Amino acid sequence: MYKITVIPGDGIGQEVMQPTIDILETLNSKFEFIPKEAGKECYQKYDTNLPEETIVQCRESDSTLFGAVTSIPQQKSAIVTLRKELDLYVNQRPIHSYTNPDIDFTIIRENSEGLYSHIEESTGDEAIAIRKITYKASERIINYAFNYALKTEKSKVTASHKANVLPVTDGIFKNTFYKVASNYPTIKSNDYYIDAMAMYLITNPAQFDIIVTTNLFGDILSDEGGGLVGTLGLIPSANIGDKTGLFEPVHGSAPDIAGLNKANPIAMILSSCLMLEYLGLYDDAKRIQNAVEETISESKVKTPDMGGHNNTQDVANNILHRL
Amino acid sequence: MYKITVIPGDGIGQEVMQPTIDILETLNSKFEFIPKEAGKECYQKYDTNLPEETIVQCRESDSTLFGAVTSIPQQKSAIVTLRKELDLYVNQRPIHSYTNPDIDFTIIRENSEGLYSHIEESTGDEAIAIRKITYKASERIINYAFNYALKTEKSKVTASHKANVLPVTDGIFKNTFYKVASNYPTIKSNDYYIDAMAMYLITNPAQFDIIVTTNLFGDILSDEGGGLVGTLGLIPSANIGDKTGLFEPVHGSAPDIAGLNKANPIAMILSSCLMLEYLGLYDDAKRIQNAVEETISESKVKTPDMGGHNNTQDVANNILHRL
Ligand SMILES: CC(C)[C@H](C(=O)O)[C@@H](O)C(=O)O
Ligand SMILES: CC(C)[C@H](C(=O)O)[C@@H](O)C(=O)O
Repeated sequence: MYKITVIPGDGIGQEVMQPTIDILETLNSKFEFIPKEAGKECYQKYDTNLPEETIVQCRESDSTLFGAVTSIPQQKSAIVTLRKELDLYVNQRPIHSYTNPDIDFTIIRENSEGLYSHIEESTGDEAIAIRKITYKASERIINYAFNYALKTEKSKVTASHKANVLPVTDGIFKNTFYKVASNYPTIKSNDYYIDAMAMYLITNPAQFDIIVTTNLFGDILSDEGGGLVGTLGLIPSANIGDKTGLFEPVHGSAPDIAGLNKANPIAMILSSCLMLEYLGLYDDAKRIQNAVEETISESKVKTPDMGGHNNTQDVANNILHRL
Repeated sequence: MYKITVIPGDGIGQEVMQPTIDILETLNSKFEFIPKEAGKECYQKYDTNLPEETIVQCRESDSTLFGAVTSIPQQKSAIVTLRKELDLYVNQRPIHSYTNPDIDFTIIRENSEGLYSHIEESTGDEAIAIRKITYKASERIINYAFNYALKTEKSKVTASHKANVLPVTDGIFKNTFYKVASNYPTIKSNDYYIDAMAMYLITNPAQFDIIVTTNLFGDILSDEGGGLVGTLGLIPSANIGDKTGLFEPVHGSAPDIAGLNKANPIAMILSSCLMLEYLGLYDDAKRIQNAVEETISESKVKTPDMGGHNNTQDVANNILHRL
């Protein structure tokens, strides 16, 4: 029995979570789902977008499924705080197109520091933010990326940084990258400046297997990856630490379409597959992934972001019936 | 007579500069070209990648044409230093596809602060970089963007930032944006997080007229724009201040193809057109732009980055003969 904290959040986060749970409940593996609150509606009720109780429950669970939350100016981002509180230092985002075979790579984003350190100061006329880069965090994320390449039998890891403008902080990242790379002689390694990387994702994506990068660069590249795939509605993610994991779609709460039953549930469903893999339930993950793949390639049942006319429930049911 | 400092730099910077000068010399407007050094070869000769003499000459000229320089770890980036020394606070980058009419927008990048402040500190195990955002610089770049929209009869300005994770620094940028926008009631305005922007550039570029953003985000988005157009070899840029301007292709020195006479000269040639516009020589700019457009759409003469088999000189000559 796996204990899973479930945080639907708000907006379309709520709409994509229920169908995902329905799918997980058809598996032979058994889960205890413990619902917890976070996000904008939570803030309106309790004056906090992330109650301590939610954090504690995530810590005590085998994994957390997270829908999406709307940013509120008064509060630190609930998801960024959760990543930090649970020490989820890996943010793994597979970018996989179902129509273009050249687009098939995984972004491994450092998830604990960089410009997400939440250190900003204002002195009236101006403000500064601190971008913090450490050897420790760089080394563990880069090691994770190379190990992941080995495990998934990929041949190359590409680092991205801006060491020409940030020679000290991104010097750490770049130098650590090549130091770690030398321990993995069977895996190829290279690096690009973040701006060149943003271009190559479009002009030559086939060259990429695994991309490892700092926090905000990973944030930007993964949404760009969603653009390449055509919709963020297909991009799942895993936030992984040494103790637990949190799994969430890359898309946000999408207030503009919330409540319309139009949201694509696939990113959330595929995020739950990343959770199953994390829990070691590879067969379960594969079964759901195959069903998703069939729905995408064999059925015309699609939400509007994929050019279809169906709703969230139609797509989820189509997947469910294939299991 | 316009005084123009010419900095070919190194790598393909040198190869694209001469044909550009050749084209400018066919115009009726008269220029005095003053060659100056900067970049890697300059560093090898004089132990500095940006001699004071070069900076002084740029200051005293009506404009500077800049090719490209290779980054060297021992020295601050010559181009970043030039932008700062000459107070070129605007970096303007038109992203225009000759085949896809949906891709036609201009990125107005703040060019003086953000993560380009060159303030980094290392404390052994970790390092920090300072991202500085000021009201003054935000206001002047945003004002420039709205004025540019008026001048070029565009209907919309879109800001991009990451105020959900950087509420203080990017709060300044976002708030200033809407404050300035209220002074331009005829121009539409909206904003996207930088990650969403990186996606929309691919999935819905037609919505953009003018994009205004902070320094590093503009750097990333403009190379992504190059990806959309298919090659950076077509993307020019203008660095503009209150006293002078510096015009350079968005591509770098491309050491991998340097010396092979393969570089696309068009980005440099179009950068010289942005200079002509800056100098008020609109007819000259238009003549060259038309010739470039004809070469691209009517001839098969193309460098390899555009899928062709011709060299730098062939393309430049094709343009020259149309003038
Ligand atoms: C909502 C936001 C704080 C978050 C981030 O920037 O990490 C999101 O964009 C993401 O990619 O998960
Ligand atoms: C070479 C580099 C310092 C520069 C920048 O980051 O601004 C380049 O990428 C650009 O876009 O002009």
